[in-house]
Amino acid sequence: MNPKEFRKKIANNEFDSPTSGYCEGYIQANMVALPSSYAKSFEEFANKNNKAIPVLEIVKNGFKTSILADGANLLNEIPQYNIIKDGKVIKSVKSIEEYYDEDLVFFLIGCSFTFEKALSDAGIELRHVVQKRNVSMYNTNIELNPYDMFKGKMVVSMRPVRKELVSTACVVTSHYLATHGGPIQVGYPEMIGIKDLQKPDYGDMVDIYEDEIPLFWPCGVTPQNVLRDIKIPFAITHKPGHMFVGDKKDSDYYVG
Amino acid sequence: MNPKEFRKKIANNEFDSPTSGYCEGYIQANMVALPSSYAKSFEEFANKNNKAIPVLEIVKNGFKTSILADGANLLNEIPQYNIIKDGKVIKSVKSIEEYYDEDLVFFLIGCSFTFEKALSDAGIELRHVVQKRNVSMYNTNIELNPYDMFKGKMVVSMRPVRKELVSTACVVTSHYLATHGGPIQVGYPEMIGIKDLQKPDYGDMVDIYEDEIPLFWPCGVTPQNVLRDIKIPFAITHKPGHMFVGDKKDSDYYVG
Repeated sequence: MNPKEFRKKIANNEFDSPTSGYCEGYIQANMVALPSSYAKSFEEFANKNNKAIPVLEIVKNGFKTSILADGANLLNEIPQYNIIKDGKVIKSVKSIEEYYDEDLVFFLIGCSFTFEKALSDAGIELRHVVQKRNVSMYNTNIELNPYDMFKGKMVVSMRPVRKELVSTACVVTSHYLATHGGPIQVGYPEMIGIKDLQKPDYGDMVDIYEDEIPLFWPCGVTPQNVLRDIKIPFAITHKPGHMFVGDKKDSDYYVG
Repeated sequence: MNPKEFRKKIANNEFDSPTSGYCEGYIQANMVALPSSYAKSFEEFANKNNKAIPVLEIVKNGFKTSILADGANLLNEIPQYNIIKDGKVIKSVKSIEEYYDEDLVFFLIGCSFTFEKALSDAGIELRHVVQKRNVSMYNTNIELNPYDMFKGKMVVSMRPVRKELVSTACVVTSHYLATHGGPIQVGYPEMIGIKDLQKPDYGDMVDIYEDEIPLFWPCGVTPQNVLRDIKIPFAITHKPGHMFVGDKKDSDYYVG
């Protein structure tokens, strides 16, 4: 399915699941919408932590994209949104029309789903896609560089990789700098403060086979962890795994 | 020191140690010399296992190099040699002039020391260089593709890498295909049959710090393991870690 048709289905409430494995080869993005009083500092914070929070597009004075897609509606073309009040997710919804006002600034942030076709082409099975689950995501102890009111720790996504393909997975994903690049941790989840791989903080657990090693990439859910920690009065994000799918190709973001 | 001067010192018996860290930026190579009756099959065997045994030069009807260096003498310009009889190392020597006859065919095989400058430039400390030890090498359970009388298992070299640089180490070394490329195993030595990291089968043990992960690259000592297993009547190799240093630059073997 092409991204335009896919987003139309989403706007029509015909799709509300995780987007990994859909519209293969097209860019996927995380979304964070903040009141303008927070937006400038968030932008700086993102730039200081661009492996976890690579900003691809900022939409102000409106809700239509222009870079990732021509005129996509950010109020209803994402499968699910989280409404955050005082740092807590109070609700997941399929449209944010009723929450919108002109003061909101939207950030679209690179997502590792973008390089999944490249991983798959390199012979790496995407377990969460095969098992029809959301990707596993975890809070870590990796401190972000603070800026103004923003501070906190990185969130990572995990994919198991057959031992002889680990180096290949690093090489393949390192070319997608705008969507997190290479893994931040290879094996040994305890080294980054993940206590129980069976219990992801976001998304679902997937099976890890005996000859596989878990690889961890910086994740665009990181801002959601930060917004919770700083108890932001109001914000809207995508629901983890339920991404914005743009018209740009993954190859448009390939470096090297 | 430039490689020509370095080899001259070796020929004069003024240097007989491991060569890692010397002549930074120049190619280093493993050596195997076999009777001509074995050479053709070994060449095929190497080609079928070129991640572990990448052949850079073959010298027949003589003992002088022409590709890796112009006229280097393979009989005394390597710091130490192993003399093998019936598969066993019977002696380590500094010159093989007395063992030479015209029937011998010399294979020069890519060595991971070649990409160590690139690792170092990427911020990865080479522990064996800092600790003035030989690199750690291990026999594994990774089966080679057999050919004719040649068969056996891969040998790997190990370098500890800080956890946040593991992906970088994979990326950097993957560009040096002629000298083994990216690691064959990242962490989890038991997955490739290494029982005790503290006891390398060749070379020395080095310290591994708490925030580090051991990375394993295919190693050009692999043929020595094979020659032992097949109980070859006669062969000469370099002594592990004591390499031939050529005049070619590491950059001449950079791909990508």
